[in-house]
Amino acid sequence: MQDVVVVSNRGPVSFREGDDGEPVPTGSGGGLAATLHPLFRGTGATWVAAAMSDADRRAAALGLMRDEGIRIVTVEPDVATYDMAYNVVSNATLWYCHHHLWDLPRRPRLDRRWEEAWAAYRDVNRAFADTVAEHAPEAARVLVQDYHLSLVGGMLASLRPDLSTTHFSHTPFADPGILRVLPSAAAGELLAGMAGSGACGFHTARWEASFLGAFADPARRADAGVEGVPRTYATPLGPNPPALEAEAASDAVTGARELLDELTGGRRLVVRVDRVELSKNILRGLWAFDELLDTRPRWRGRVTMLALAYPSREALADYLAYRAEVEHTVDRLNERWGTPGWVPIVLDVGDDRARSMAALSAYDVLLVNPVRDGMNLVAKEGPVVNRAHGVLVLSREAGAWEELHPAAVGVNPFDVSETAAALDAALSMDETERAARAGALRKLVLGQTAADWLDQQLEVAAGLRAG
Amino acid sequence: MQDVVVVSNRGPVSFREGDDGEPVPTGSGGGLAATLHPLFRGTGATWVAAAMSDADRRAAALGLMRDEGIRIVTVEPDVATYDMAYNVVSNATLWYCHHHLWDLPRRPRLDRRWEEAWAAYRDVNRAFADTVAEHAPEAARVLVQDYHLSLVGGMLASLRPDLSTTHFSHTPFADPGILRVLPSAAAGELLAGMAGSGACGFHTARWEASFLGAFADPARRADAGVEGVPRTYATPLGPNPPALEAEAASDAVTGARELLDELTGGRRLVVRVDRVELSKNILRGLWAFDELLDTRPRWRGRVTMLALAYPSREALADYLAYRAEVEHTVDRLNERWGTPGWVPIVLDVGDDRARSMAALSAYDVLLVNPVRDGMNLVAKEGPVVNRAHGVLVLSREAGAWEELHPAAVGVNPFDVSETAAALDAALSMDETERAARAGALRKLVLGQTAADWLDQQLEVAAGLRAG
Repeated sequence: MQDVVVVSNRGPVSFREGDDGEPVPTGSGGGLAATLHPLFRGTGATWVAAAMSDADRRAAALGLMRDEGIRIVTVEPDVATYDMAYNVVSNATLWYCHHHLWDLPRRPRLDRRWEEAWAAYRDVNRAFADTVAEHAPEAARVLVQDYHLSLVGGMLASLRPDLSTTHFSHTPFADPGILRVLPSAAAGELLAGMAGSGACGFHTARWEASFLGAFADPARRADAGVEGVPRTYATPLGPNPPALEAEAASDAVTGARELLDELTGGRRLVVRVDRVELSKNILRGLWAFDELLDTRPRWRGRVTMLALAYPSREALADYLAYRAEVEHTVDRLNERWGTPGWVPIVLDVGDDRARSMAALSAYDVLLVNPVRDGMNLVAKEGPVVNRAHGVLVLSREAGAWEELHPAAVGVNPFDVSETAAALDAALSMDETERAARAGALRKLVLGQTAADWLDQQLEVAAGLRAG
Repeated sequence: MQDVVVVSNRGPVSFREGDDGEPVPTGSGGGLAATLHPLFRGTGATWVAAAMSDADRRAAALGLMRDEGIRIVTVEPDVATYDMAYNVVSNATLWYCHHHLWDLPRRPRLDRRWEEAWAAYRDVNRAFADTVAEHAPEAARVLVQDYHLSLVGGMLASLRPDLSTTHFSHTPFADPGILRVLPSAAAGELLAGMAGSGACGFHTARWEASFLGAFADPARRADAGVEGVPRTYATPLGPNPPALEAEAASDAVTGARELLDELTGGRRLVVRVDRVELSKNILRGLWAFDELLDTRPRWRGRVTMLALAYPSREALADYLAYRAEVEHTVDRLNERWGTPGWVPIVLDVGDDRARSMAALSAYDVLLVNPVRDGMNLVAKEGPVVNRAHGVLVLSREAGAWEELHPAAVGVNPFDVSETAAALDAALSMDETERAARAGALRKLVLGQTAADWLDQQLEVAAGLRAG
C-alpha cells in the first residue's frame, strides 16, 4: 500500500504529557483511528493526521510520531486556529448538524465569531490538503476520513489532479432540511469540498441518500458550484474480529469479568457502552429502564443495568450538562428502585477498555439506542465477543440497523415506551431464540469486517484512477 | 354556504370569566380564527369548535355561542382529556414536530404518559368527528383546520361517506426524518387520519412535498394502511385587506401611532410582531440587532427595535423559559448599548392590537425571521397597512417566502450575521428602491387574500363531491 495515503484528524499514535513533562504514548482511545490502525500497520501506507495537543506537537518534534510500517506525517496548524476549527465547527456545528442534535430555537448561533471559526476550519483543511499534496506519491490513492476534513477533497483536486481521492463520512449526513441551517455559503463550500473528491462514501444507503438529497435543490447546487450529481457509494465499516477476540481472551478482560460477576451477583445484565455523547441517547435508555421496572415489577431486583459511558468533549458546555443530567438521573432512579442488596443502575464514567470488553462478553441484553448514528461499532463488537447469547436492542436510527435488523430487536430511540417493551422482550426471550439471534448477528457482522471495508475503499479509489 | 362546515379547535367566539363569574366575550385574539371569522359571518355556514375553557362551556350552556349568520356548534370534551390532547399532543408534540423545535437528545420523552395523551388526542378528534357527523347537512363540504384535528378526516370518511372533507394544515409539515421521531403507530395514525380526508391542503408546495415525502417510505405507508398517495394541494392564506385597512384607520390605532412616534423620537424603526413562540426566533433577532450595532456603529442611537411579543402557551415550561431568555437578552443589550436618550430595544409583551397595527403602519423595517413557519400572516399584513415604504426582512423558512421573495430581503434565520447584514441593507436602502419593493409586496399580498383562499377551499371540496 505504498501508494495509499489515509488522512484523518486523529492519527494512529497520540501522546499525553508524562510526569516529567515528556510525551508519553497513549492508547488511541477507541474510535475510528483505533479501528483503522491495525489495518495499516506494516503496509508502508502514509497516514496524515493532526498534532492535536502540545504533547503531540512535542512528540512530532522529537521524531516519536512513528509506527511499524506506517509513514506518519503530522499536520501542525496554529493552536488557536485548530481549536476553533475542531471545537466550534467540527464538534459543535458539523457533528450537531449531521446528527440532528440542535435545539433549533436557540442553537446554533451563527454569528461573527462563527464566521471566524469557519475560516479557521477552512485553514485547517487547507493545511491538511497542502501536507497531503506535499507527501503523496505520484498518482496515489488518498482516503480522506470524516467531517473534520470535508473540504480536503476539493482542495486536492486542484493541488494534485494526479491523485485519486475518496472522502468517507463516519457520521450520518444531515437531512436536507437540517443542512439548510448552515449559512448558505458555508453549506455550499461543504458540499463542493466533498463533491470535489472523486467519490463520497457513507456507511449506509440512507446517509448516502441524505447527501444526494442536498443536490436535488438547484439553488443549492448553484451555491456549491457543482454541476450534476457527485459520485457516491455506501460501504459499512465493521470491527476487526481477530483483534477483538484476542483482546477478549486477555488476562485483563478475564479479571474484569470476575469483578463484573461479583457486581451482578447472578442477576440479568443489560449493558451499554458509549461515550457520554448527546447522540447516544443515554437519558432515554435510563427512562426506559425506569419504565421497565415500573410497569413490569417482576424485573425488580432481578436485573442490573451497567452503563459504561466515558467522558467526551468536555470542552463543550452542552456535553458537561448532559453528563450531569445522566448522573443525576441515575442517582434518582437508584433512589427510587434500589434495595439494600441491589443497585439497579451502575454508571461507570471511567474509560476502562478491559471492563468494556468484559461487559460486552457478558451481557444478556446490549442496549444501543442512539438518536442518530453513522454506524455504531459497539453494536457489531458486542456480538463478536459476547458469550451469553446476548440480545441486541438496536435503534432504527443507527447505521448498523441497515445490516443487523434481521437479528436485532428494533426500537424507535425516541419512544421510551417501545424501548422499555424491547428490554422486556429481550430479557424474556427463550434460550432457543437467543441462540439463534446471537448466531445470526455474529454471522452478519463477520460478513463485513474492517478489512473488507478497507478493500472496498481501495477498490473505489482504484476505479477512479482507471476512470 | 349552508352546505359548508368549518371545523377548528378554537371557534370564532370565545369567553372569559367576568368579575361576576358570568362569561364575557373576548376578542378572538388574532390567529387563525380571527382571520377566518369575517369570511363566514352571515353565510349560514356551520362552525364546529371546542369549548376551550370553563367560561366557554358556561357560555355554550347559556346559549351565548352564536354569531350573526354562523351556526356555531360546540364540542365539549372532558376537561382533563382535552388538556392532555391540547397541551401534550397538539402543542408540545405536533407543533414541535412540524416546526422542528425539538432538542432531540432530551425531548420529546415519549413514555407511558405520552401514550395516554395520544389516546386523549384520539378521543378529542373522535368527539369532533362525532359532532360534525351529527350536525353536517347531507353531502356538505367540510373544511377541517389544522394539526389539532389531524384524525378527523379519516374518522368522517367512515362515519359520513356522503361528506366532502378537506384537511388544511396552517403549520409546516415535518420533514420525513423528523416525523420518524413519533412512535411508529402514532405517526401511522396521523398520516392515515389526514390521508382519510378527500384532500390535504398546505400553504406552500414545500410543506406539501414534506407531507408527500412521508408516503415515499413503503414501511410508513404500511403503518398508515394507506395505499397510493393522498390527494394534496397548496393554497396560501392571505390577510383580509379591507378589514385591515379599516382597522388601521381607527382612532385607537391613530392614538397608538402618536405614542409610538413619541417613543421613537424620529429614529428609524425596526418592528417585529409575534407571539412569544419558539418558532418565531426572537432571540436570534435580538442577537442580530446586537451584531448590527456592534459592527455598524453608525446605527447606534439612530434606530429603535420595537419587539411586540405577546405571551403564549404559558402552560408549557419551555415557553416560560423562552420568554425569560428573551427578556433577559433585551435587558442585557439595552445595558450594553443604551444611552440616556436612547433605549435600543423596546420589548412589549402586552397583547395590544392597536399598538401592533400602529407599529405595522410605521415600520421602516419589518423583521419576520421564524426558524420555520407555515405561512406567517404578519409578513403579509405589514405591507397592507404600512405607510412608510417599509422593507420586509423575511426568513426563507417562512411559508410567506414562497410568494414574497421577489420583493423581500431574504435571510437564513439561523444565520445571525446574515440577519444583521439584512437589517443594515434594509435600513440603508434608498427611497426609490424602498418604494418599489413596498409597492411590489403590496401587490403580491393583494393578489391572494383570505377570501381567495376560502374560495379555493370550497372549490377543492366541490371537486371531491364531483369526483
